Amino acid sequence: MNIPLDRDKAVPLARQIQAYLERLIHDGLLGPGTKLPATRELARALDVNRSTVVLAYEELVASGAARSHVGQGTFVAEGIRPQPGPRTDGDGGQATPAIDWAGLFSRSARIAEAEEERRRALVAPAAGADGRVISFAGGIPDSGFFPIDGFRRVLNQVVREEGAALLQYSAVAGYAPLRRFLSTYLLRFGLEARPEEILIVNGSQQGFDLIARTLLDPGDAVAIEQPTYPRAVQVFRASGAQLLAVPWAADGPRVEALERLLERHAPKLFYCQPTCHNPTGLAMSGETARRLLAAAGRHQVPIVEDGFDPSLHYGERPRAPLKAQDRAGIVIYIGTFSKILFPGLRLGWILAPAPLIERLTAAKQLADLHTSTLLQAAVHRFCERKLLDRHAARVARQYGRRRALLLRSLERRMPEGVRWTEPQGGFSLLVTLPHGLSASALLPRALDRGVAFTPGAAFFVDGGGESTLRLSFSAVAEGEIDEGVRRLADVVREQLRRPARRDPGERVAMPLV
Amino acid sequence: MNIPLDRDKAVPLARQIQAYLERLIHDGLLGPGTKLPATRELARALDVNRSTVVLAYEELVASGAARSHVGQGTFVAEGIRPQPGPRTDGDGGQATPAIDWAGLFSRSARIAEAEEERRRALVAPAAGADGRVISFAGGIPDSGFFPIDGFRRVLNQVVREEGAALLQYSAVAGYAPLRRFLSTYLLRFGLEARPEEILIVNGSQQGFDLIARTLLDPGDAVAIEQPTYPRAVQVFRASGAQLLAVPWAADGPRVEALERLLERHAPKLFYCQPTCHNPTGLAMSGETARRLLAAAGRHQVPIVEDGFDPSLHYGERPRAPLKAQDRAGIVIYIGTFSKILFPGLRLGWILAPAPLIERLTAAKQLADLHTSTLLQAAVHRFCERKLLDRHAARVARQYGRRRALLLRSLERRMPEGVRWTEPQGGFSLLVTLPHGLSASALLPRALDRGVAFTPGAAFFVDGGGESTLRLSFSAVAEGEIDEGVRRLADVVREQLRRPARRDPGERVAMPLV
Repeated sequence: MNIPLDRDKAVPLARQIQAYLERLIHDGLLGPGTKLPATRELARALDVNRSTVVLAYEELVASGAARSHVGQGTFVAEGIRPQPGPRTDGDGGQATPAIDWAGLFSRSARIAEAEEERRRALVAPAAGADGRVISFAGGIPDSGFFPIDGFRRVLNQVVREEGAALLQYSAVAGYAPLRRFLSTYLLRFGLEARPEEILIVNGSQQGFDLIARTLLDPGDAVAIEQPTYPRAVQVFRASGAQLLAVPWAADGPRVEALERLLERHAPKLFYCQPTCHNPTGLAMSGETARRLLAAAGRHQVPIVEDGFDPSLHYGERPRAPLKAQDRAGIVIYIGTFSKILFPGLRLGWILAPAPLIERLTAAKQLADLHTSTLLQAAVHRFCERKLLDRHAARVARQYGRRRALLLRSLERRMPEGVRWTEPQGGFSLLVTLPHGLSASALLPRALDRGVAFTPGAAFFVDGGGESTLRLSFSAVAEGEIDEGVRRLADVVREQLRRPARRDPGERVAMPLV
Repeated sequence: MNIPLDRDKAVPLARQIQAYLERLIHDGLLGPGTKLPATRELARALDVNRSTVVLAYEELVASGAARSHVGQGTFVAEGIRPQPGPRTDGDGGQATPAIDWAGLFSRSARIAEAEEERRRALVAPAAGADGRVISFAGGIPDSGFFPIDGFRRVLNQVVREEGAALLQYSAVAGYAPLRRFLSTYLLRFGLEARPEEILIVNGSQQGFDLIARTLLDPGDAVAIEQPTYPRAVQVFRASGAQLLAVPWAADGPRVEALERLLERHAPKLFYCQPTCHNPTGLAMSGETARRLLAAAGRHQVPIVEDGFDPSLHYGERPRAPLKAQDRAGIVIYIGTFSKILFPGLRLGWILAPAPLIERLTAAKQLADLHTSTLLQAAVHRFCERKLLDRHAARVARQYGRRRALLLRSLERRMPEGVRWTEPQGGFSLLVTLPHGLSASALLPRALDRGVAFTPGAAFFVDGGGESTLRLSFSAVAEGEIDEGVRRLADVVREQLRRPARRDPGERVAMPLV
């Protein structure tokens, strides 16, 4: 610790040390329970007598800011609550007024801020759900299924065998053995990509971001299916793009609607989730896929296919990704290890024709040089040992059971007029309430009853979806699914009975995401 | 593996399988040595007789595309060289012409491409240096010093104790214990930041990127010291900013030059490396720091301080970071674990006032959701166990010895008229050749002699620096430093003797970075 001392000042050194530490404690820089440096150590660092530091510490203890434990040292008192408020300067006076940051924010930052506020207003109540709430809100894998011990072992192996190389700066495009592995692994889904057509990224999210930077200028139009994944929407919006919604029908986005947009607005790309659509869990039909590829080819507009994870399918065979049928090289495919393995690693990939991968790689280098090579090597080892195959089969079965339980409960418990999608892949389904019911108005009541969900409006680009809600089954224990649906059905039934329910004055203005 | 079979076709299934696999092999999707799926497994996946797959594999072996090892399986032949060229479709015909990607690239991607080409032209020869070359070119830590085993142990511990949480989605701003730790740890450098004033990022590079996104719009001006770190330049350029160079004098950037720019061009920020300046290794004087902060405060222009690593200092005490003297909260500080610990982890942080951290956190969420929590937790544990302190002291001593050896060799061996900086921190120093000598013209000759460096022009924004070159001492073994300098001095002496050396027609046009 480096305490600025003024040796010409009338204030004794011990008092200066005490004042400095007190300020740090009250500013929250030294949190409750933090051990202060040993007196001998601090005295040496500051070039003062040890007795000076001892005196300063004693005063801190006397003032209640610290506690001393014989033989252990001096610690910041546990009861101390840091004082929020403006930072003070070293003399305890108020610091110069800070800069007006908000006035300096870029256009992109201001768009992102507005988007975030709208989104926060929409999903905040569900995020605050406590332990007694059965939450269908989080579209995340169940960490109870994580193959933690197997992963720890491969981590150990790769650090032992290749540690020095894995911890040094490394290739921007990714760990070469992982790119080679993916090239072969992805064939099982019909995806054909040479290693040089693969870029390793920090999860799908960085995939969206690099694609947006590389293909979008402010003011460009982007076509996007609706409903859709909100975090992709946020990225395209923040890059200054105008979003054009293409509605989903039962078998995928309506190609004739997309064609009209392609003709009139010349969007720079079309974003979709053809096989594990979030929030509905539906998959695009083969016929829609063919028509979509033909339309994109005619207009030379790239399709960004968010693959989610084709291992998470609930039919006999997985539906082929759009990219598997892409002869023209017009589809940019984004894949991830976040759904089937570990979200916390932040590991995904982009498949695209080599000239585009080259530009995306340059964008990746500007963004963060490269993805952690250690984690790439560990995941590669995990996959190479066929541990991923075993794990994927196991969790797909588990999620399949939860999906089946949820569908059965909905069938049994929901009042008439409530409809839902039958997911063929992914982690969730979309419920549509009877006309006039608003899902976000329902949410606070549902939370009171101990059940959470995500209002469907979060997945709509242009303000629709008020009567829909997403139920994610991936992270809800089997034993809780039916009880959760029972609570939700009760709330829906109650709302249906309320006489005022069609009063337009009571409808909540839905924030767009 | 998912092979599309047409059961109505006259072509037998075994032939279809063979043709498909041959195409993958020749397209480079199945690399030499790749094991093909077991015949039983593939037969089941494709719903064909096992004998059909056996026949297909036999044909592959007969054609030379694969080899069979009794009891082990069938493998892609080692001698196969994938055929580059346009991707073919499933029937062996040419695919539809691909999209014109270059025509779709955004303005930012085109700027980045141009920058990259210029940079590549400049540094390519040094990057290609082989084993016999003594390379002063890479400004990177020596992986021989990496505390690999200690890190492996803490990795194990955190995975065992917190695996499920560390591998799940996590907080955008970073792993809370690491932010708390940094808040206290950084006090030793005089840096005061509450945990909520700290954002964890993927190394300094992501720091530059998030700051650029949050504060810069295309067309904005950015003031930047010169010489400076090229990767920061690339980020600011790619965001569409116009760069204004502020020259370094002996004691830091010339504040009066900055003031003129602040008055005339109203730049949105000023970027600098005050304590470990790359390439010179110099540190800003306290007086320059005070004047710089005052000027920035008057104009309300934030300073981006790239901290490199204050542990890597070669004097009695480290020079205080600019942010340590920043009462107004106008400095945005970027720190990293890449220099002192492991670059490959991609782990760094930004310190800034809370309102800015909040916006940077939103930008981080759009960019990649969060930094790997597992790696954050492992580094936290490593630091908490005081392993970083021990390691930092050790490597600072080692780098200090290399620095001293390099200075001594330069003193002894360089011909008159050659000057260099005396680094107070960091990994490198800057050499200035006698007037008329071009460092990039020197480089090919130096490589022939077995010594590499980085031409100084790479660190200049506006085309200067032709006569300078950077020598990094961090990754050169002690026993090689003097020999490397001897080779370099010989080449310089030779060039000085060449009569045509001042012929302006021979001067190489220097690419800007």
